[in-house]
Amino acid sequence: MYTQSGLKKLVNKSILNLSYNEEAEKLNDPVKYILSIGGKRLRPVLALMACNLYNDKIDEAIIPATGLEVFHNFTLVHDDIMDQAPLRRNLPTVHSKWNVNQAVLSGDVMAFIANECFLQTPPHCLSKVFRVFNKVAIEVCVGQQLDIDFEKAAIVSHEEYLRMIELKTAALLAASAKIGSIIGGADDKESDLLYEFGRNLGLAFQIQDDLLDIYGDIKVFGKILGGDIISNKKTFMLVKALEIASVEQAKQLHEQFTLKEIDPEIKVKKVIDLYDQLNIKNISENLANDYINTAFNLLEKTGVISERKTELVSLASSLIGRDN
Amino acid sequence: MYTQSGLKKLVNKSILNLSYNEEAEKLNDPVKYILSIGGKRLRPVLALMACNLYNDKIDEAIIPATGLEVFHNFTLVHDDIMDQAPLRRNLPTVHSKWNVNQAVLSGDVMAFIANECFLQTPPHCLSKVFRVFNKVAIEVCVGQQLDIDFEKAAIVSHEEYLRMIELKTAALLAASAKIGSIIGGADDKESDLLYEFGRNLGLAFQIQDDLLDIYGDIKVFGKILGGDIISNKKTFMLVKALEIASVEQAKQLHEQFTLKEIDPEIKVKKVIDLYDQLNIKNISENLANDYINTAFNLLEKTGVISERKTELVSLASSLIGRDN
Repeated sequence: MYTQSGLKKLVNKSILNLSYNEEAEKLNDPVKYILSIGGKRLRPVLALMACNLYNDKIDEAIIPATGLEVFHNFTLVHDDIMDQAPLRRNLPTVHSKWNVNQAVLSGDVMAFIANECFLQTPPHCLSKVFRVFNKVAIEVCVGQQLDIDFEKAAIVSHEEYLRMIELKTAALLAASAKIGSIIGGADDKESDLLYEFGRNLGLAFQIQDDLLDIYGDIKVFGKILGGDIISNKKTFMLVKALEIASVEQAKQLHEQFTLKEIDPEIKVKKVIDLYDQLNIKNISENLANDYINTAFNLLEKTGVISERKTELVSLASSLIGRDN
Repeated sequence: MYTQSGLKKLVNKSILNLSYNEEAEKLNDPVKYILSIGGKRLRPVLALMACNLYNDKIDEAIIPATGLEVFHNFTLVHDDIMDQAPLRRNLPTVHSKWNVNQAVLSGDVMAFIANECFLQTPPHCLSKVFRVFNKVAIEVCVGQQLDIDFEKAAIVSHEEYLRMIELKTAALLAASAKIGSIIGGADDKESDLLYEFGRNLGLAFQIQDDLLDIYGDIKVFGKILGGDIISNKKTFMLVKALEIASVEQAKQLHEQFTLKEIDPEIKVKKVIDLYDQLNIKNISENLANDYINTAFNLLEKTGVISERKTELVSLASSLIGRDN
């Protein structure tokens, strides 16, 4: 069995081996830059682990798995334009290091470099794998659109919020697990279980991520606590809080998120106070736990023997901050 | 045999039948808008004509051909952002009708809608067709990068300029003809001839387009004559003129393209005077003619009987303004 760190190394090597059309260097520089500034390589590692559940040989899955990482980074480059984000992983985003036009164009070519990777899927499952990939690619765009729409919307239900993060984040983890399993030789029933595993894991992960912004260990999390509150970002916690708040509490929450010239520290404190009154931390943790338990139950249901699943269980556990 | 107008109707119908993920309407509105504001549907019509050379049945080529049109419009949406173009086909561009973020995101989803079309290529040639498409998709990005680079460059050779328009424009016409022929059942030798036919046609077409900006009939062309000169656009004529100009003529040309607060009418007149001194119209027309003759010779070399080629010859002739 391959370990998480072993797989990450294989993915990083595969990223370095990507071939580029070198006629216009300026096009590729931002691609190489964003792909070099790291991250966990979560999606390709998940795909390769899912492949490895069914097959000792994972070679044929490496390039398609790399395509998932290239696609993910394509979405980061374009999302950062839309969010006007100056930093990504503590380094300048592509549009701030170069410019918006360059970020649009270099992002675009990444979509086709991802295609190039998927075209190297073994012929017997190329069409199937590509369909899974392309469906999720469209879903990620839909999720980003909903995210933009929700930022401007006065009221968003927690169901709408969950559907948005499902499309924007969880679906790609789901598709990664499914694609890896298909290349590994899993049948439809098994690969659908892997899809649902990834989807539930992704939802748990995103809610957990929202929680960590407030309740995380600043040393581990590496961001200022309450950043989402300061930047008025809609999170599961905020959406849920507004849903169950009394008229008076809702008024106070709205105030914090609409008043100009508010001291950020006081704002974070007041919002957390309201969350505490509404038991938001528990509600969110319980929901994340429900999703993660569902994910592990789905993994149980697969026809794979337990020993083959240890690495995947360990990856999933670390993702949602559970010791395992 | 299908006629050009019959094929255009089939393409327009297929565009109307495209299926969308309807969860975020705002994502699709700009896609439907840009696809509805027309154009000649040149790329899919060319693909279907190339298919029809080898096959009376063209049904299987219609959706992949539609993918070529969706891809082409994706590049238009993103290029218009980069060029800050307010109008496209006399109507507002997507980023001016909506905003830049919407144009980035709706453009992105078009790339995957194009993929979706190519995934409906008949299974026996799916992988081959998709590779041709994806290669050209990357080339079009490279071409756009070179176009951006050249706008800022002090000196561009005519060879560099031709390579840029080859990548940005001609390669997609080439790939369209090749893809259509492959789906129609052409072998590699034939489909390569169709590729070269499309490439030469595309080069002729682009040089012709540059010429029409100055020497075209304003009623037919529908744009103000000299628009490229006014907007300081690098064209084949300008690049070639700078290459063969005397030191004094080059100085005068540079002056026209760098002086601020210059009367546009006088600028156009002076530049055309210099082009006339350098015989640029003839040089450009001769080059376009060379390309078109090469294109027709390549079409001759295919194993298709003459009667099957009349529609393609007529399309090619109309494209480069030759009566046929």
